Amino acid sequence: MADDGLFPRRLGIDTYQEPVAYLRQDSPVCRAEGFNAQSRVRVSCGGRSVIATLNTIRSDLLAPTEAGLSEAAWRLLRPAPDERLCFSHPRPVESMSDVRGKLYGRPLEEAAARRIIRDIHEGRYADIELAAYVTACAGSRLDLAEITALTRAMVDAGDRLDWGRPRVMDKHCVGGLPGNRTTPIVVPIVASAGLLMPKTSSRAITSPAGTADTMATLAPVDLDTRGMRRVVEQEGGCIVWGGSVSLSPVDDTIIRVERALDLDSEGQLVASILSKKVAAGSTHVLVDMPVGPTAKVRNPEMAQRLEHHLVATGEAMGLAVRVHTSDGVQAVGRGIGPALEARDILAVLQNREDAPGDLRERALVLAGEILELGGVAAPGEGLAQAGESLASGRAWDKFRAICEAQGGLREPPVARHRHTVVAMHHGTVAHMNTRSIAKLAKLAGAPADPAAGLVLAVRLGDRVEPGAPLFTVHAESRGSLEYALDFLANHPECLSVEEDLI
Amino acid sequence: MADDGLFPRRLGIDTYQEPVAYLRQDSPVCRAEGFNAQSRVRVSCGGRSVIATLNTIRSDLLAPTEAGLSEAAWRLLRPAPDERLCFSHPRPVESMSDVRGKLYGRPLEEAAARRIIRDIHEGRYADIELAAYVTACAGSRLDLAEITALTRAMVDAGDRLDWGRPRVMDKHCVGGLPGNRTTPIVVPIVASAGLLMPKTSSRAITSPAGTADTMATLAPVDLDTRGMRRVVEQEGGCIVWGGSVSLSPVDDTIIRVERALDLDSEGQLVASILSKKVAAGSTHVLVDMPVGPTAKVRNPEMAQRLEHHLVATGEAMGLAVRVHTSDGVQAVGRGIGPALEARDILAVLQNREDAPGDLRERALVLAGEILELGGVAAPGEGLAQAGESLASGRAWDKFRAICEAQGGLREPPVARHRHTVVAMHHGTVAHMNTRSIAKLAKLAGAPADPAAGLVLAVRLGDRVEPGAPLFTVHAESRGSLEYALDFLANHPECLSVEEDLI
Repeated sequence: MADDGLFPRRLGIDTYQEPVAYLRQDSPVCRAEGFNAQSRVRVSCGGRSVIATLNTIRSDLLAPTEAGLSEAAWRLLRPAPDERLCFSHPRPVESMSDVRGKLYGRPLEEAAARRIIRDIHEGRYADIELAAYVTACAGSRLDLAEITALTRAMVDAGDRLDWGRPRVMDKHCVGGLPGNRTTPIVVPIVASAGLLMPKTSSRAITSPAGTADTMATLAPVDLDTRGMRRVVEQEGGCIVWGGSVSLSPVDDTIIRVERALDLDSEGQLVASILSKKVAAGSTHVLVDMPVGPTAKVRNPEMAQRLEHHLVATGEAMGLAVRVHTSDGVQAVGRGIGPALEARDILAVLQNREDAPGDLRERALVLAGEILELGGVAAPGEGLAQAGESLASGRAWDKFRAICEAQGGLREPPVARHRHTVVAMHHGTVAHMNTRSIAKLAKLAGAPADPAAGLVLAVRLGDRVEPGAPLFTVHAESRGSLEYALDFLANHPECLSVEEDLI
Repeated sequence: MADDGLFPRRLGIDTYQEPVAYLRQDSPVCRAEGFNAQSRVRVSCGGRSVIATLNTIRSDLLAPTEAGLSEAAWRLLRPAPDERLCFSHPRPVESMSDVRGKLYGRPLEEAAARRIIRDIHEGRYADIELAAYVTACAGSRLDLAEITALTRAMVDAGDRLDWGRPRVMDKHCVGGLPGNRTTPIVVPIVASAGLLMPKTSSRAITSPAGTADTMATLAPVDLDTRGMRRVVEQEGGCIVWGGSVSLSPVDDTIIRVERALDLDSEGQLVASILSKKVAAGSTHVLVDMPVGPTAKVRNPEMAQRLEHHLVATGEAMGLAVRVHTSDGVQAVGRGIGPALEARDILAVLQNREDAPGDLRERALVLAGEILELGGVAAPGEGLAQAGESLASGRAWDKFRAICEAQGGLREPPVARHRHTVVAMHHGTVAHMNTRSIAKLAKLAGAPADPAAGLVLAVRLGDRVEPGAPLFTVHAESRGSLEYALDFLANHPECLSVEEDLI
């Protein structure tokens, strides 16, 4: 009976990225194949197939002739109405023996890295297997040769862009600092100086905004490779979402599990960053690395080790990497959340007086380094040249041209509900927990509600009077606003004012 | 709205041991709490609560007022008809930082081991977190102090039996060898010699039969602690299923993930074995360790390391441990599968001429060692004394008495369908892959169909003629039989006959 296949049923169950299939426990296929709950199964349909985790059904949720699919499995299989689902045992995940080898002390060689990345790419790894892989590489377990092998394997798993130019500039920020949205300022400065900067950015996974989320409030970002190429050829740069271009595609899968486990692997981090850059066809990369107690890179020692790995692995991959460490003790700019960050960006690009100075300064420093790295500014002169591009309006013109080429510049949305938090006493703004601040903006609705988030009215070291505004929470619904304020009541560490002792 | 709670709905979805909760994606609680697919959530009901993984529903599977539970979540929460489910964020799994510490090179100290084991026991670890923990301890990553800390933490997580006797004997077999079912022979020999041997055994997880599965075809094994105590006080021994007694309860959880990953952790293995023994109130333990290329312990070096860890950790826990290594190159006895193994056991206990000699020999050697370890046989005389117990019928009498005390001796069931595989040519039985043989027995239906499995007609080294029976597959349904034979067609390594060269 299994040969005839089962009717596909979209159950509407969202299991995030892990494909799940549902079979009645009393179905002939479960019995014949010896499938149990949590078995890994291969589900085929037409010429397509997917490896899924099985959940068995002990109720009438499914008819005896049906098999269910989770949303992720449905997306991957896309069964047509007349198609049937067939189930079989997947071949064993042979590269798990490479993972075990690494665990038992064998170095991860290039062939092993390729096998692992290929199996992850083909969706053969269950989440627990991904967790084992990520754990096997955690901390400082990968040496330079292993990181390079992994980077190469990750690049080869996806597409690779070629711009036919000797210098293709790129930047990357390690570990988000809320509001540190420099890319939309840096790209037009660099592009208007005649360098190529085809920038792909990500959407937020755990943060209140990714660069793609912020940029999406200003212009369309969902361009495919052809669309992206057209914009870059016309304007010398773009700021698009990397999700519709398949660059180092296993990266997202690996990062998802690392985040869920809150596990850092320095080697995997380097491979993740550089594989995306190599695949994007970049030749010169500036890495922005904020260092601070609540940032991803917590201290100078870790920063130094990471810099060494990034530069050396880059070299092995034919990529010039420069690392810029910066202060990561507080959020950057005023807005946190897609639209609120977009407003800061516009203020900087338009040379407005109320533009946040720290965001402007950070963007100029990074742009200046890229201008030097790209050879269009002499050493030590990049910063001034970047400043001139901004002051003259050239950067703003280029930004508008890029937005138009991507589909049209637009006005960021505005939130319906606001609540301003004020100081209760005289004092000095003493601490900011950037993780809690990010959480607060997320609870207010960012990034799903693009107008949601918060706007800081103060910076560390500012002196405040009782009643002075500290920050304003923006939300699209009263519920989200209240939820954020509830969190705040229990998390005073978001922003703390130390009372004056005098 | 979340405060009023949602109507519990049993969806009948079996996700094995991981509790899963289902909420409509558009439900106020998802929005208010910021829950997404794969979020970890705390589900409360009456005074009970469980940590579950969330799947969100994008269909009408659930009404807006309902929340769904998987079978595992339903079992743990047991909602009454008038009760409602409330959802909240679980407190962070703080012991994951101990797992990360171990990964980053910090030794696992006793307090950390306790925190980890407590969180696993309370169901706070998602499967990927369990995978990370298991991976962090994989291979030889745990030293003696860490193994002892872990063993102690695992014991303390569950109940602990006390028999009020200075010597309580126990045995354990490391890594199954198909058909190696010595316990039901050893226990009556030891008990009839006046020693206490309250044996708890497990059901099969990945093998065609566990001792509890085999024993269940001969007598009831589902006794609770009180019932077990009554049998032991009356007969000096028992052979019951350990599942209804809560001894080192996290062990099953950890083993499930280790098996799914096919990861061995020597330290975790030692802690798993010894924690169950200490919790069972045992004082003297004999460990049977079959060594062979397709067994769990693959070579003498690994056997030696394990023996050292077992003995030294046992010492730290106040447990006398003796290790007996044995040959693990082929299956033991003739039958593989619950009822078929039970028949071998009966043949040995009844001193029947057709009793498999290897099973008899193995059981006697182990029983003899336990008699010496327990001080009722002089060194070197245990084997003879065990043989005498068997030959005289004392062991058989004791076995019957134990079965009666457990609820009554019964006849093992017989399978409806059989297929005998014969030799195709003259030759010698040269190789047996014990893992493939186990797989074959499982595909035939064991252990769910207790009569299913296979009966070997030959042993390694036997010379066979064309047409001579090699083994017979037993199955309850034609479908299972054919499924096993299909597997066999593609896996000739199960049992291979080398052609004579003369």
